Amino acid sequence: MENPLTDLSEQPLETVPSAKCAVHVSRDWQAFAKAKLDSLTKPPGSLGRLEEIAAKIVSIREQESPGCSNKAVYVFAADHGVTEQGVSAYPKAVTQQMVRNFLANGAAINVFARCAGAEVIVVDVGVDADFDSHPSLVDKKIRHGTCNMALGPAMTESEASAAVEVGRTLAQEARLQNRDLIAVGEMGIGNTTAAAAITAALSRKPMAEVTGWGTGVSPQALIHKRHVIERAISVNGLDKNSSPLHVLQKVGGLEVAAMTGMVLEASEQRIPVVIDGFISTAAAALAYAVEPKVKDILFAGHISEEPGHQVLLEYVGLDPILSLGMRLGEGTGAVLAMMVIEAAIRMFNEMATFSSAGVSGAL
Amino acid sequence: MENPLTDLSEQPLETVPSAKCAVHVSRDWQAFAKAKLDSLTKPPGSLGRLEEIAAKIVSIREQESPGCSNKAVYVFAADHGVTEQGVSAYPKAVTQQMVRNFLANGAAINVFARCAGAEVIVVDVGVDADFDSHPSLVDKKIRHGTCNMALGPAMTESEASAAVEVGRTLAQEARLQNRDLIAVGEMGIGNTTAAAAITAALSRKPMAEVTGWGTGVSPQALIHKRHVIERAISVNGLDKNSSPLHVLQKVGGLEVAAMTGMVLEASEQRIPVVIDGFISTAAAALAYAVEPKVKDILFAGHISEEPGHQVLLEYVGLDPILSLGMRLGEGTGAVLAMMVIEAAIRMFNEMATFSSAGVSGAL
Repeated sequence: MENPLTDLSEQPLETVPSAKCAVHVSRDWQAFAKAKLDSLTKPPGSLGRLEEIAAKIVSIREQESPGCSNKAVYVFAADHGVTEQGVSAYPKAVTQQMVRNFLANGAAINVFARCAGAEVIVVDVGVDADFDSHPSLVDKKIRHGTCNMALGPAMTESEASAAVEVGRTLAQEARLQNRDLIAVGEMGIGNTTAAAAITAALSRKPMAEVTGWGTGVSPQALIHKRHVIERAISVNGLDKNSSPLHVLQKVGGLEVAAMTGMVLEASEQRIPVVIDGFISTAAAALAYAVEPKVKDILFAGHISEEPGHQVLLEYVGLDPILSLGMRLGEGTGAVLAMMVIEAAIRMFNEMATFSSAGVSGAL
Repeated sequence: MENPLTDLSEQPLETVPSAKCAVHVSRDWQAFAKAKLDSLTKPPGSLGRLEEIAAKIVSIREQESPGCSNKAVYVFAADHGVTEQGVSAYPKAVTQQMVRNFLANGAAINVFARCAGAEVIVVDVGVDADFDSHPSLVDKKIRHGTCNMALGPAMTESEASAAVEVGRTLAQEARLQNRDLIAVGEMGIGNTTAAAAITAALSRKPMAEVTGWGTGVSPQALIHKRHVIERAISVNGLDKNSSPLHVLQKVGGLEVAAMTGMVLEASEQRIPVVIDGFISTAAAALAYAVEPKVKDILFAGHISEEPGHQVLLEYVGLDPILSLGMRLGEGTGAVLAMMVIEAAIRMFNEMATFSSAGVSGAL
């Protein structure tokens, strides 16, 4: 099956560096981190990715001993009109049911967040249900789910902007709350369809490379899902001139838009963000297309089983920290990776140096 | 450079199933774990490796809700006579200096063990120095380091047996202490040379595939290291008829032998063991060659940068949990992986089911 955008350009959607793009990561802080890492009691470079992670965190935070205790995962939830097309293995009601499960601490993300010491904040950007107030629930509902993108735009321009703003506002609040590290995750039956459409638009790859099983559709349903995405791209007139925010509005989701906003603003606020699987990476890829410097604050928590995830990670240029064959979303992979990132930060802050421990250097 | 054992046989060293080899993992417990995992609020299989890990732990422990709070990492330390050949980038004194660093809580393993909530137990099996008593140090010194294996056997048969027994005894104690999960790590300047010799003997692969940079030798020193290993195999008369324990005695190390013993006994005691990098995996591979059922209680914490590590993981048939470009040893990769294993166990124990959370199943 062809991606209708494939013929339009050999090149992926160009990124648009903003006028205010500054040198985001200072060479001084990178040099400081490298020198400190090489003074610790281990052969230089022997902690591999953990050394890279620690140096990146130091460069983002611009702190000699960056903290890692104040962590949160934001689980953005919204419904998708495209579920009318029968693209998911689960009924749409599962979105709201899982939100209640998050609030009752029963979901995988709750367990993993307890392991990682991260607070779970559930953000309702567009679930097709109304919830009682709850200390872990942020009500930012814009509408009760998107429209069916196979028939027209998923959102209006103003709805998309409002959803982006939800994420931006939460990133600003995260800064005021002195968050050391945040993760983004999502819940939304139908949202691998939206993520695949975004991936097709950004990467111009064939449908088969960007569309996967989601929560577990049949082989026949997978072919149907690819046709639905093709139709959504075509109905909404996406082409090589479509801006990232145009793509987001036409074939995205409310939770995707909020995550895009959170990544964009976290970059301004210099808060490290761990992205999760296919959907949150689609949001981060849109943010990257708007503003490439967001890459400097992003950590790819893991590589999921969805084929489009690898395409997006390559598009942004991120190496995943974990590879555990996961495909659940919710922020589960991101939060597990937070444990590795915290270990890297603590290694940087807490290890003895060759001189303090009286250990001989190399011959 | 050729492995002198390569021509002797096309087949790797045969494993010797013991007479007492029973069905080690019960199908009933595997079926119980699978059914429970599929009842949890996530699409079946969507947590990938974490589901496999949880099922394996349940099968080892034969418990409906296996614990994960009582964890320890055993860091076995010993010196190596082969350092006389100039095979390491660091002086031999670093072994004892690092033991003191472990006891002062300043090393990478101390930091990562704090992150993972694991106790660090340092076991002196053969360091060429004497230490004051310390609550975290177990004195099981057999001799002040091995002999130079390039000139003759690293140990006598009785020394090798005594070192194996050190690990067996500690595994029995771990059982009495109700350890839920243990990790093995090591410290011993020169021990990647021993591990490479063991790997050559077990796998019959060419030297270039089994010998790496260790703590960071020069390209010229790497060629020298390979010659030293070749000589050690030849001087000690290792051939295809050499038993695993013979290989261990001739070209192994005291800490390697202790880890082999710990893996063998942990299998009897049904304690899950997380192995670390190249050296601890060489020890586990020897245990596997003695008794293949040890595989059922082993978890490969990570894949290290040492080329021989992959060879050994394939020999035993284990997939690493993490791949972070590490090559430090000490148990660092194993302890980081413990965090993932704990997350898997807690997921199994703590997640809500579809019915308890009122979440709809697949359509």
